[in-house]
Formats: sequence, structure tokens, C-alpha cells
Amino acid sequence: MKLPFLGSLVLFGAALSVYGGASSNSKGYPVNWAVTLYDSFDSIDAFGPIDVLFYLSLMKPLNLSIMAETMDPVWMRPASPALSKAGSRFTVSINPTHTYHKPPRDIDVLLVPGGMGVRSGNSSVPAVRFIRKAYPAVKYLLTVCTGAGVAAKAGVLDGKRATTNKAAWNETVKMGPNVRWVSPARWTIDGNVWTSSGVASGLDLIFEFIDAKYGKEVSRKIQSKVEFVRAEDACDDPFAALNHVPASGNCRA
Amino acid sequence: MKLPFLGSLVLFGAALSVYGGASSNSKGYPVNWAVTLYDSFDSIDAFGPIDVLFYLSLMKPLNLSIMAETMDPVWMRPASPALSKAGSRFTVSINPTHTYHKPPRDIDVLLVPGGMGVRSGNSSVPAVRFIRKAYPAVKYLLTVCTGAGVAAKAGVLDGKRATTNKAAWNETVKMGPNVRWVSPARWTIDGNVWTSSGVASGLDLIFEFIDAKYGKEVSRKIQSKVEFVRAEDACDDPFAALNHVPASGNCRA
Repeated sequence: MKLPFLGSLVLFGAALSVYGGASSNSKGYPVNWAVTLYDSFDSIDAFGPIDVLFYLSLMKPLNLSIMAETMDPVWMRPASPALSKAGSRFTVSINPTHTYHKPPRDIDVLLVPGGMGVRSGNSSVPAVRFIRKAYPAVKYLLTVCTGAGVAAKAGVLDGKRATTNKAAWNETVKMGPNVRWVSPARWTIDGNVWTSSGVASGLDLIFEFIDAKYGKEVSRKIQSKVEFVRAEDACDDPFAALNHVPASGNCRA
Repeated sequence: MKLPFLGSLVLFGAALSVYGGASSNSKGYPVNWAVTLYDSFDSIDAFGPIDVLFYLSLMKPLNLSIMAETMDPVWMRPASPALSKAGSRFTVSINPTHTYHKPPRDIDVLLVPGGMGVRSGNSSVPAVRFIRKAYPAVKYLLTVCTGAGVAAKAGVLDGKRATTNKAAWNETVKMGPNVRWVSPARWTIDGNVWTSSGVASGLDLIFEFIDAKYGKEVSRKIQSKVEFVRAEDACDDPFAALNHVPASGNCRA
């Protein structure tokens, strides 16, 4: 009788926290972060929030998983050779920690960056599948830029308010005909779904999220280190008009 | 007589461009970019400018080299376990393309990011050595955040105006007693040396550099995609006062 009982304890412990560190179940804030990557992602979409969270991770116990289709390096590069007409050799690769097939358990926050791979080719398809499956179990879903298109394709934004990059607006909103797309909006919040506009707006989103979930004091400390001048308001979005995106929805609620 | 002549032609071609693509020698703007990395770098310091340059590389032929001590992955992580008191597991690794021992030829712009590795431990020492050796041959040197400390240790900022992260000011200026440190300053330009303040200010720096070297038209196009609200002025630095850094030098000249 001993072994099954011990086994159950071990399984129970594993379900609470796969990392062996503090789990979100014992903290009042999200602990386990996962980022969905794919070929031709935008680097600030991912590393903007990751950088800010890194400084938070020095103050609060946080875990990060970088997820991709395989454990091979993931590339920031044009989605197809046709998109690199200038003949540049300008790429960087980063290394996943988990595959979509063997995800970390207990993801508190799923961060979905965008990039050229969302609109061109099929590289983001495994991320779409994973988000569809994982969303019911995560506490929060955050999207940056055309990452909203990836989440929209997964169906998890249906009926929700969301925004995306204003320079990629027309192509991205088609990916979610049942989404309540909002413009202008630097970011939107609808239940447990937080979305931001293009690239650098992911920094505004992550600071707003840290304000809400970890407290404004740590948020201010990190801001003084990373020297990012935040947008004061979710509606402060000069890029909607600049990219001729028509007004829709309400950036505040 | 034929072979030596052909050999000379090949060597001449190699000297003009190691990439086989367009060289800066045939263009009016910088083509070959290299980034010096080391363990415990700051991810936006590097990926802020890299992201913006990636969009530029779709319009202009640009090459990127990621340089490190070895070809092993380089880590964004605390410089020592003592700095990770919270017990987080929050790291990412990226892959170099070149080592400091076998650098790419014809580096037009050397980009030096900062991070915890500059102030703690010895991980940035190989970058310091490389910058000292490479600086005389590069066209431009750009530093982001405490990357100015790496360049200062290499001696290449001596007698020049430079700035750095205001939250890391006191520790960083000690690395270059002969540097003309400027505060407040979002960025400084002194000859071929361009330096920026902390983390996100590297985005302001890179847009300013693109304005000057590739033209304001491409700069505006990229800004509308990456949705970064730029500082209008090199002196627009609220983080100097926030971090109690005394005024020194002139941010404009």
C-alpha cells in the first residue's frame, strides 16, 4: 500500500509545480510563463516583455519556458526568401526549452508574440494548435503585435476585445472574424486576455500587467532600469491614425 | 602568371566583402553589422536595435554577425547565482554566428549591448579585448546601456562624450575615468561613436542612426511598423533625474 500512496504524493507534487520551485498555486501572482515561438517571429514582440520580466524574476520567483514545434533553434528571419528582396543576411536564432508536444505543466501566463511568420507561410500553425489546446488551463493569455492573429486563429479571442499592429491591421483582423477588434488601442484587456498593438507596445502591455498582478512598486523599479517611457493610457495609440486604421470598439472597456 | 593574378583578384574580392553580398565599399551606407555578446547580456539592449535593423534589412542589403567568445549559446541570465535570490528559472539563450577569435571581415558597425555581465563577473572581458582590437577598423561604434562600460574598459571612449544607463551610472562611469560622461542624455554622438542611455533608449539610438545613415524615409516606415514612440531630442532623458544622476557634459554636442 505504501508505494501507490507515495506515487500519488509525487504525482500531486508534480501537478502543483513542474519546476520544483514556487508554484502559482502557493503565490498570489503568476509564476510560470511560457512563450510560443515559431520561425520568423518578431524579436521585440518576444524579448520586450521577456526583458522586463527578467528584471521582475530577480525580485519574484518566476519561471520561463520558450516553446516551439521542435527543440531546434527558432529563427528571426524573413518568412520566405521572396520577402528578402534586398539580399540581406540578417538573422538570429534562439533556443527553445520545450516543444508543443511536451509542454511545461502549470502555465500561468501564455505570451504569444507576432512576426512575419503569422502572415506568411505555415510556421505559426503549431503555435495555433497549442494555444487552442492550452488556453482553457492557463490563467492569462497575452498577445503582442500580430500574435493576436495567432490567438485569433486558435479561436480563443472569439467574442473578446482585442487589438493588434496597426500596420498589419487588415491582414490580421481577417484571422478572427468573430473577434471584437479595437482601434485605436495601445492595449486591451478582456477578462484574462490582454492584447497589445505593434512590437514596442508589448512593453506597455507587460508593464500594465505587472502593475495589476505584481504591484506598481516593482513595476516602477523595473521601469527606472529599462528606461522605457510608457504610454499613460490604453487609448494612447498614434499609430492607428498613422496607418489609416478606422476606429472600432472601445480601448478602455 | 595567371594563377597569382587570379589569386589576387579573389583576395581583393574577399577583402571587399566576406559575405558575397553587397559590401559597404560599394554602398553609401553601412552594410555589415556585428553585435558583441557575452553571458548575462540584456536582451532589449541587443534585440531592440536588431529588431529595427531587421526591418531595414528587408529594404537595404544588410548583414548581421552575432559574436561571442565561443560558438556555444549565449545566455540572458543573472551574472551569478547570488543575483538570483528569488530562485527564478528565467533564462533564454541565443546562438552566435562568429567568435571573437574568427571575426567577420569588414565590420561597418559594431553594436555593444550592456547587461548584468558588464558589472558582475568576467563574462564581458573577451568583448572588451575584441572591441579594443577591432575599433580602429570599424566605421561606427554604437553602445546601448552599460555597453558603454564595455567600450570604456576597451579604452575606445577615452576623451569622447558618452552616456549610459542612469540606474547603473555610478558603477559604469568608473569603468572609464577618461570618458566625458554626459547626463542627462538619451543618447550622445561624438565622431563615429554613438552611445545611448538604458535598455529601451537603444531604440532611440538606432532610429537616430538610421535617420543619419540610411535616410528619414526608411526610418519613418520602420517606426510605423514597430510602433515605438521615439524621444524627440537627445536631451529628453527623464531617467537621469529619476535615478539622481548629477548633470554633466552636454547632450547635444
